Amino acid sequence: MEKVNLAEQFERISEFWAPVTAGEVNGAQIRLVRVKGEFIWHHHEHEDEMFLVIEGRLCIQFRDREVFLDPGEFLIVPRGVEHRPVAGQEARVMLVEPASTLNTGNVINERTRQPSPI
Amino acid sequence: MEKVNLAEQFERISEFWAPVTAGEVNGAQIRLVRVKGEFIWHHHEHEDEMFLVIEGRLCIQFRDREVFLDPGEFLIVPRGVEHRPVAGQEARVMLVEPASTLNTGNVINERTRQPSPI
Repeated sequence: MEKVNLAEQFERISEFWAPVTAGEVNGAQIRLVRVKGEFIWHHHEHEDEMFLVIEGRLCIQFRDREVFLDPGEFLIVPRGVEHRPVAGQEARVMLVEPASTLNTGNVINERTRQPSPI
Repeated sequence: MEKVNLAEQFERISEFWAPVTAGEVNGAQIRLVRVKGEFIWHHHEHEDEMFLVIEGRLCIQFRDREVFLDPGEFLIVPRGVEHRPVAGQEARVMLVEPASTLNTGNVINERTRQPSPI
């Protein structure tokens, strides 16, 4: 039972769009991800996904609109809803999602990563 | 599906130690709580509890040690572990815990609150 300093942990992450797991609470994983550029359109069939921006600015695109998140803002994308995260400059984001959630959701391609422990 | 600005939501909370629910993700609730002073010793029989400090400094006391959390730091207290949150000055904290979690855990007293929606 050790505390986690988000800024320190982000410094240990080298790859963009590859979430690492920083904690687990009642089966939900707390994941950290550095993002930059455009990700892919995808959805998660069975899992809601929470994005809390820690640094930078994250845009979550939907097919009919987009939501911009600044530090201290979060958005919960319900299961089944297609979305694409985009960040013009680097953003650092905390995710809350089940262990089963893949970063690319229903899509498996070269950007798919199994979350690794920190 | 609206974004939540943590700072704005904290401004709407008037009572210390009374969590409000700001979101739900896969059955886990995202709760916000303003804390100041000493809370009570308690544990949660079946639920882990995550504390992420957004503003201020929070001390989580255990029977054998204490952990200080500054903004951007989190601690997950496993189920069954007795603890007491203490904040010399006001701190603003985001919690991740199930809907079933009571703020006072195994203790029901005048400080017990049912979390209310924002």
